[in-house]
Amino acid sequence: MGKILLKNTGRIPEPTLRRLPWYLSTVKILQTEGEVYVSSTRIAKATGMEASQVAKDLSYVDLTGRTRIGYEITSMVATLESFLGFTHLHKAYLFGVGSLGGALLQDSGLKHFGLYIVGAFDINPAIVGTSINGIPIYHTDEYEKRMAIDQVNIGVLTVPISIAQEMTDKMVAGGIRGIWNFTPYRIHVPDTCMVQNTSLYASLAVMYNRLLHPEKENK
Amino acid sequence: MGKILLKNTGRIPEPTLRRLPWYLSTVKILQTEGEVYVSSTRIAKATGMEASQVAKDLSYVDLTGRTRIGYEITSMVATLESFLGFTHLHKAYLFGVGSLGGALLQDSGLKHFGLYIVGAFDINPAIVGTSINGIPIYHTDEYEKRMAIDQVNIGVLTVPISIAQEMTDKMVAGGIRGIWNFTPYRIHVPDTCMVQNTSLYASLAVMYNRLLHPEKENK
Repeated sequence: MGKILLKNTGRIPEPTLRRLPWYLSTVKILQTEGEVYVSSTRIAKATGMEASQVAKDLSYVDLTGRTRIGYEITSMVATLESFLGFTHLHKAYLFGVGSLGGALLQDSGLKHFGLYIVGAFDINPAIVGTSINGIPIYHTDEYEKRMAIDQVNIGVLTVPISIAQEMTDKMVAGGIRGIWNFTPYRIHVPDTCMVQNTSLYASLAVMYNRLLHPEKENK
Repeated sequence: MGKILLKNTGRIPEPTLRRLPWYLSTVKILQTEGEVYVSSTRIAKATGMEASQVAKDLSYVDLTGRTRIGYEITSMVATLESFLGFTHLHKAYLFGVGSLGGALLQDSGLKHFGLYIVGAFDINPAIVGTSINGIPIYHTDEYEKRMAIDQVNIGVLTVPISIAQEMTDKMVAGGIRGIWNFTPYRIHVPDTCMVQNTSLYASLAVMYNRLLHPEKENK
């Protein structure tokens, strides 16, 4: 069996980090089909990449294929899942239990990828004190008090844009170090905090425009 | 008042399309604060961009500011919302009513940005025939029959990765022209169809890695 070592390879480029889950999905499917080895060429074909790029991306994770045999699938799945952080539980809070926030609380799938939302915050008296999908909803004023108990690193931001920055400042002051921003607002954070933007509305804007103007990108 | 004309400006670069919602959020907030005009410099500062880039992006939408006065906010909000497609209803189907799919059906916020999910498909007998948030859930076998009635362009893909490609092929064959792919799998489509990937799991992978290795990007 190919020797696969997992070193702590540190900070790797974002494009690579975003491609690794594609490779993981591909080899997970092959695994369920009973396959044992996979070549970088096959992963490349399945994901629309160049084989050399696949091999380079995987080398960041210290995954190296064997000549004429390829990568051992079971090890690869385990290594990638661990490296990407999906097998660890990362505690998170959600801020703003409106339509999108409430929907995300319902999505138990996030937990399978390591995101464990342990509490949510809002100011709406109709929902404060209740819970969604087993996740308690606290009043926003209780955030600092809860932080002392829960020791959370990640905050999911789903408040209205009008209070997005104010809530961000509060989150950072309370000790949140990573913000998953679902609002279409550009929040500002100090260097000690990092932001991942997932704007569903920007994706919609791109899709609407492309459907209206389906010509090829040739200029 | 500054004259603001909206021409059909066609296909514009994706980075611009992704920034326009930031500008829109910024001016919407200024609008609620009673402001009447805004400069590109102010929008740039609020969104972390260069003023020249903001002006260039807005010129794609035929928004031109007046010297020393800037852009008229009310017109700008209306023009951007219309241009981005948020004021039109775009009918969509959702495929795969699992945890994430069910959560997205709950999110009425998508409708405020023009996405009108008129039906969902699954094969689980426990949910086929029921509805979520007023949206009927049909058996996947009924897709072609429903398409003839609903004439939908957009499909939201939230199935398990093991059937992501198979479902994609079915969607495309039935007439879906734009796929919003929430699975971490790289789906393949013909040139006549476009894909927007929103991988929540890739965002999580980036966030976990950056939290683990918070040093600056200096190599």
